[in-house]
Amino acid sequence: MTLNKFYVDNIIKTALMEDINYCDVTTDYLIPENQFGEGRLMAKADGIVCGVEIAARVFTMLDESIEIEIIRHDGENVKYGDDIMKLSGKTSVLLKGERTALNLIQHMSGIATAANKYVKIVEGTGASIADTRKTLPGLRPLQKYAVICGGAKNHRYNLSDAAMLKDNHIDAAGGITAAVTKLRSKVGHMTKIEVETRNLDELREALEVGADIIMLDNMSPDMMKQAVKITDGKALLEASGGITDETLRAVAESGVDIISVGALTHSVKAFDISMYIK
Amino acid sequence: MTLNKFYVDNIIKTALMEDINYCDVTTDYLIPENQFGEGRLMAKADGIVCGVEIAARVFTMLDESIEIEIIRHDGENVKYGDDIMKLSGKTSVLLKGERTALNLIQHMSGIATAANKYVKIVEGTGASIADTRKTLPGLRPLQKYAVICGGAKNHRYNLSDAAMLKDNHIDAAGGITAAVTKLRSKVGHMTKIEVETRNLDELREALEVGADIIMLDNMSPDMMKQAVKITDGKALLEASGGITDETLRAVAESGVDIISVGALTHSVKAFDISMYIK
Amino acid sequence: MTLNKFYVDNIIKTALMEDINYCDVTTDYLIPENQFGEGRLMAKADGIVCGVEIAARVFTMLDESIEIEIIRHDGENVKYGDDIMKLSGKTSVLLKGERTALNLIQHMSGIATAANKYVKIVEGTGASIADTRKTLPGLRPLQKYAVICGGAKNHRYNLSDAAMLKDNHIDAAGGITAAVTKLRSKVGHMTKIEVETRNLDELREALEVGADIIMLDNMSPDMMKQAVKITDGKALLEASGGITDETLRAVAESGVDIISVGALTHSVKAFDISMYIK
Amino acid sequence: MTLNKFYVDNIIKTALMEDINYCDVTTDYLIPENQFGEGRLMAKADGIVCGVEIAARVFTMLDESIEIEIIRHDGENVKYGDDIMKLSGKTSVLLKGERTALNLIQHMSGIATAANKYVKIVEGTGASIADTRKTLPGLRPLQKYAVICGGAKNHRYNLSDAAMLKDNHIDAAGGITAAVTKLRSKVGHMTKIEVETRNLDELREALEVGADIIMLDNMSPDMMKQAVKITDGKALLEASGGITDETLRAVAESGVDIISVGALTHSVKAFDISMYIK
Amino acid sequence: MTLNKFYVDNIIKTALMEDINYCDVTTDYLIPENQFGEGRLMAKADGIVCGVEIAARVFTMLDESIEIEIIRHDGENVKYGDDIMKLSGKTSVLLKGERTALNLIQHMSGIATAANKYVKIVEGTGASIADTRKTLPGLRPLQKYAVICGGAKNHRYNLSDAAMLKDNHIDAAGGITAAVTKLRSKVGHMTKIEVETRNLDELREALEVGADIIMLDNMSPDMMKQAVKITDGKALLEASGGITDETLRAVAESGVDIISVGALTHSVKAFDISMYIK
Amino acid sequence: MTLNKFYVDNIIKTALMEDINYCDVTTDYLIPENQFGEGRLMAKADGIVCGVEIAARVFTMLDESIEIEIIRHDGENVKYGDDIMKLSGKTSVLLKGERTALNLIQHMSGIATAANKYVKIVEGTGASIADTRKTLPGLRPLQKYAVICGGAKNHRYNLSDAAMLKDNHIDAAGGITAAVTKLRSKVGHMTKIEVETRNLDELREALEVGADIIMLDNMSPDMMKQAVKITDGKALLEASGGITDETLRAVAESGVDIISVGALTHSVKAFDISMYIK
Repeated sequence: MTLNKFYVDNIIKTALMEDINYCDVTTDYLIPENQFGEGRLMAKADGIVCGVEIAARVFTMLDESIEIEIIRHDGENVKYGDDIMKLSGKTSVLLKGERTALNLIQHMSGIATAANKYVKIVEGTGASIADTRKTLPGLRPLQKYAVICGGAKNHRYNLSDAAMLKDNHIDAAGGITAAVTKLRSKVGHMTKIEVETRNLDELREALEVGADIIMLDNMSPDMMKQAVKITDGKALLEASGGITDETLRAVAESGVDIISVGALTHSVKAFDISMYIK
Repeated sequence: MTLNKFYVDNIIKTALMEDINYCDVTTDYLIPENQFGEGRLMAKADGIVCGVEIAARVFTMLDESIEIEIIRHDGENVKYGDDIMKLSGKTSVLLKGERTALNLIQHMSGIATAANKYVKIVEGTGASIADTRKTLPGLRPLQKYAVICGGAKNHRYNLSDAAMLKDNHIDAAGGITAAVTKLRSKVGHMTKIEVETRNLDELREALEVGADIIMLDNMSPDMMKQAVKITDGKALLEASGGITDETLRAVAESGVDIISVGALTHSVKAFDISMYIK
Repeated sequence: MTLNKFYVDNIIKTALMEDINYCDVTTDYLIPENQFGEGRLMAKADGIVCGVEIAARVFTMLDESIEIEIIRHDGENVKYGDDIMKLSGKTSVLLKGERTALNLIQHMSGIATAANKYVKIVEGTGASIADTRKTLPGLRPLQKYAVICGGAKNHRYNLSDAAMLKDNHIDAAGGITAAVTKLRSKVGHMTKIEVETRNLDELREALEVGADIIMLDNMSPDMMKQAVKITDGKALLEASGGITDETLRAVAESGVDIISVGALTHSVKAFDISMYIK
Repeated sequence: MTLNKFYVDNIIKTALMEDINYCDVTTDYLIPENQFGEGRLMAKADGIVCGVEIAARVFTMLDESIEIEIIRHDGENVKYGDDIMKLSGKTSVLLKGERTALNLIQHMSGIATAANKYVKIVEGTGASIADTRKTLPGLRPLQKYAVICGGAKNHRYNLSDAAMLKDNHIDAAGGITAAVTKLRSKVGHMTKIEVETRNLDELREALEVGADIIMLDNMSPDMMKQAVKITDGKALLEASGGITDETLRAVAESGVDIISVGALTHSVKAFDISMYIK
Repeated sequence: MTLNKFYVDNIIKTALMEDINYCDVTTDYLIPENQFGEGRLMAKADGIVCGVEIAARVFTMLDESIEIEIIRHDGENVKYGDDIMKLSGKTSVLLKGERTALNLIQHMSGIATAANKYVKIVEGTGASIADTRKTLPGLRPLQKYAVICGGAKNHRYNLSDAAMLKDNHIDAAGGITAAVTKLRSKVGHMTKIEVETRNLDELREALEVGADIIMLDNMSPDMMKQAVKITDGKALLEASGGITDETLRAVAESGVDIISVGALTHSVKAFDISMYIK
Repeated sequence: MTLNKFYVDNIIKTALMEDINYCDVTTDYLIPENQFGEGRLMAKADGIVCGVEIAARVFTMLDESIEIEIIRHDGENVKYGDDIMKLSGKTSVLLKGERTALNLIQHMSGIATAANKYVKIVEGTGASIADTRKTLPGLRPLQKYAVICGGAKNHRYNLSDAAMLKDNHIDAAGGITAAVTKLRSKVGHMTKIEVETRNLDELREALEVGADIIMLDNMSPDMMKQAVKITDGKALLEASGGITDETLRAVAESGVDIISVGALTHSVKAFDISMYIK
């Protein structure tokens, strides 16, 4: 998986403009232009690293002549103390890019590490972990990319590329059957339709009318088991809502296909990485 | 405090473009243009709400005719179940703006709530809580605004507006005294100079040369107490590094002026808020 | 269906900047600021009108006080001589917006009219007409919207939201089965997979491995009939390539589900609409 | 003639962002990053090729290391089967750029080919073919460039750079004489003034007052002949409106200087070009 | 004359983002949101005012509810002490917009006042004063607009809209005759051609080949007189280079048509205007 | 000091888009793509050169293969006739970049030269010269950078990074003491507070409450001397308003620390530099 490079360059430019604004008064006045140095990024925790190439790009966007050796690639395991990347070039550039590079790689590695933790918990069941649209403004592509690097999967990217029917849509159309039927007649053939359901009757109606995916909203693992039995492979089932670290395994063992977790992207704990410059 | 409205409109536009892209296939095909509804945002936890006007702006940018009643303002306490805002207008607009508005207000309220928790812990000491430059790309203004709404304070905004000398700067200039002296002769009169120190000798040197602020990097509360005594009000002292919920009070009681906390903005837990539409 | 308003405002702004640049030397020097007039847009041909609200928005973006009465809405039939929209306001604004508004509505109505012609040809068969990614740079959203207004359907919007396997993808993965299997294990549950096939053996392999949609590339109507029989509803079939006005009906009658037509967006004949100002 | 490179890079970036959005799910998951391939663009029709360097730039913007051999340059004749460009580099990049590159080169070659057809028809007369402001939003520079590559000429670029008086301008100023006189006293010395006329009396008035160019709006070839005689070289004459392939030669033979054709840019038929990747 | 409003809004937004960045720490913390005040802009010198509506727009872009009474319009004379505009609304908005509004109106009024001074000097001769392309990055439209408000005229806007042949162009083409002939065969009929000449032989050659405008580069007023005689109305003559306040009248009396003055836009003295808020 | 390169590239792109728009009709049609030439920039006056690298960047942004030898660097003295930079590459690129490069370097050198003149006048006193926020829209970073190259200093960059209290702020808060106290409790520890004073009583109050900087607004040199005595080093003093070339030395000798001069950036006289191409 590769992120769209135009997006990447744009978000880096935004971050550097935000952080540097006019100039770096400390570095510009104190570090001679012709001083060269070495830098390295080191993991300060155990987890999955992500955003390595983006962090590297921060420096090469500031100065094309910075030399970078990438030691750990996106999606790889790192342990506390592991070197992730080595840099060589103007000290002034290393100092100016440091904060922006770390902000990006720590956020993305935080997501990948959390995603991987969930993936590990459900290992061996048929369930996969998916993200949601609960992302931060402007950061969705890199957040969703980090989810993949952690071994989880992407839900729809945006409101255009797949349909999800909630209460309001269903009520406006006059019920699940009417809503799915109407929508099917409108959307293109590449567009999947998911229906949110809160009980087994709704599930049955959604199944009947041929929903591609059915979301089981805030159901107990037991009710999910019943849902799996009723569905019998005729649609994909997505568990969502109120799932905690404790209940996750039980949910996965109910036989659902996908478990979506908003916290993957809306409540990210930065993964600790330090940069040393000398 | 008011956020720059051009920044606000821009980040909302970015978020809505990201989330809607071409169209909302579900809403556009199922919800009649002339269907009107009511919405409300409700707190699902206790804390400090922040981003209320930004969330409201999401809807009015989509449709100027949406009517909004703001019930809780930025910086106010909310309890689980409290209504934060009521909306009235086209159902299609309420549905299209929902996710983006929630993503913004949950993130900002998460920051404000965390900031406020820290502020409460140090209450009664002379220490204030400050943020850092460990922010997410493109979101720094709204993250720093949320920090203020939680009762904490803003460190420098970017590398232009204040100087902070780290090892590399000090080494390049040939020591703290030389570095501060050189920098003082260059920067404008509105620019403060902060020096990072790791021991009391460095502190003394920074004091001597007249640093405006001195950062005590990863010092123990005991060493900080000594630093406070040595400093005797001749500079502001900022504690930074390795401070946890457990040690925070002790740090504050050491007599330092500012305690900066990167986690305020780099590891945000979304504050739970739901939107109900009917 | 509603186009993303931020996209709409942006493309209009682009067009007006391109057309006006500094000023309108003719209008600015000759038409008094306080001269008011009436304008109307009239169809000069028979077809489906599209882009009416966008054309109206051109004028209100130039001057919010322009009053507009929309007579025919997007997707409606018009005959030569029918009024589409009436405008009232500053003559200078009507003159400055005229060309940009016409350029937009003529292009979009041209697409809608052509799409509708194809839809009419296949009427009564089970086939629907779809667009492609053969769109003009920056205009994809409004081109795809016009396709819908003409009664046809949208294929995928972009390379992110659905997968389509061509020779190169299949060869790289080692055959259709391997490619679809690998891809299925990677993409999210909202992403459909389409496979391009050039003969019935490839079709059978794609069916076997569970492709959601199978493209029949440059097949004769007879071969398509066989494909329909073999498929037996287990996947959607998309006919593509070398289809002309003459062969379209026969293709549709073969029983395929979708016929995609690049010319809908890559070879648009502007629909003639005039603006009269007095 | 060279297009402004900043414009070119911008429109390509717009197109690639539109087409790729987050990622290319098919290519990113199936084509190994280290797989290399060859591509070539081949004409599938006879005509004038245009946009070759822009198509090449699509690939080098995605990846600077793509090697490209340009075989036919903008403005050259191509026959069905002629190779236009050869490419060598990462297969993934060839696949991601393919659609955008083709969309651009097919559109521009379509324009150049049509322009050239018209130029051929009027060959030997003194008339030249010109484009209009009937262009597509955001594409005017590349459309007007393609017109030149086809051997035709550019009318004014926008409303700033030359003046054209229509009924409304003339009426507001109180007649042709008053309008031209007033305008001449206002505009800079680099700005030409064209007057639209519908009959020979208006032509005479425009001539008298010294219009630089006079448009003969929807006149018959016979009336144009009279206009040419009356004008006697004292102004340039532009024929416009209602000119078809059939009447074009007769119009040109009337002796007018310029024949402007809106269809060159508002009703473009894509020129068929294929890309083969192996 | 009206400036393109999209340009205006854009340059104001750029200026306000530059000046406010995150927030206005002084105003945001000290001025209550509900405090209202009055402001007025007053001339502190005699001259021509310009940029009044742009200055007003600064405030309404910050807050649509600001009420503004414009007392002097663009191009009008003001004397020291004259009120130009009165404002009423939130004190915080008046304070935030003050600097940006003044920066714009002072610069534009400075240009208009200087332009008017030159226009006055040449009054009664047939010469008009024109600007050049010696403008400041991003400010060309508003600088050229200010030139007009001062009573002078605009030279070409950019390199696209008119041709000017300098030594290098002439040498590359093999002389003035070859250069003009080649260019005439290429450019559209709306494009004027100006030739730079340094002596009367070059002037004669340019006249012969039908240049629309001939620039007399750094010639003495006497030589210009000869040039006027030779030209005898067959082309426009533009004097340029080395013209000072002292020589301007003599140059104008030589009979040239246009005198272009780079200093109008490259060396602007701000016109003193103050804003009073209470 | 180095300007943020993203800002630099952006302002150059803005300038080149403004100046070239579609194409350079003169150069594109007359100068062969494969003609190469030499250029040099030469000082036509004595002063401080600034913007050399930015001028060079104009050419390399147009064409990476242009070779440039920089002879004089930003901040260096030049005399009439000194070469500043030599260029070698495509003649067409040299011609297209010429005007934009000169516009930038002449403006910046004009600022640096003026700043240096003021710095020289106050030499030997303790006063430094500072700029203000009286800058041109979009040009603040390069204007403030030029001020530094001339040996003067930067006042605050924008309204976020330092506080300055004017009458309105003081009145709203209820006096200097209340205003400073309130503000100190709100702003972060990196933010300095300056207070504008008009007499010695206000000065005393500002001193008492601990303002970091005190502005002496329109005071006579004599009153400033008293202010210096009263202040006795307890705050920095900034002289501002009504200072002319004649009074500047006297102001500096009064003992104030900073003298801010709006004219440095709001009334710039371009420094004469020519480009010769052969």
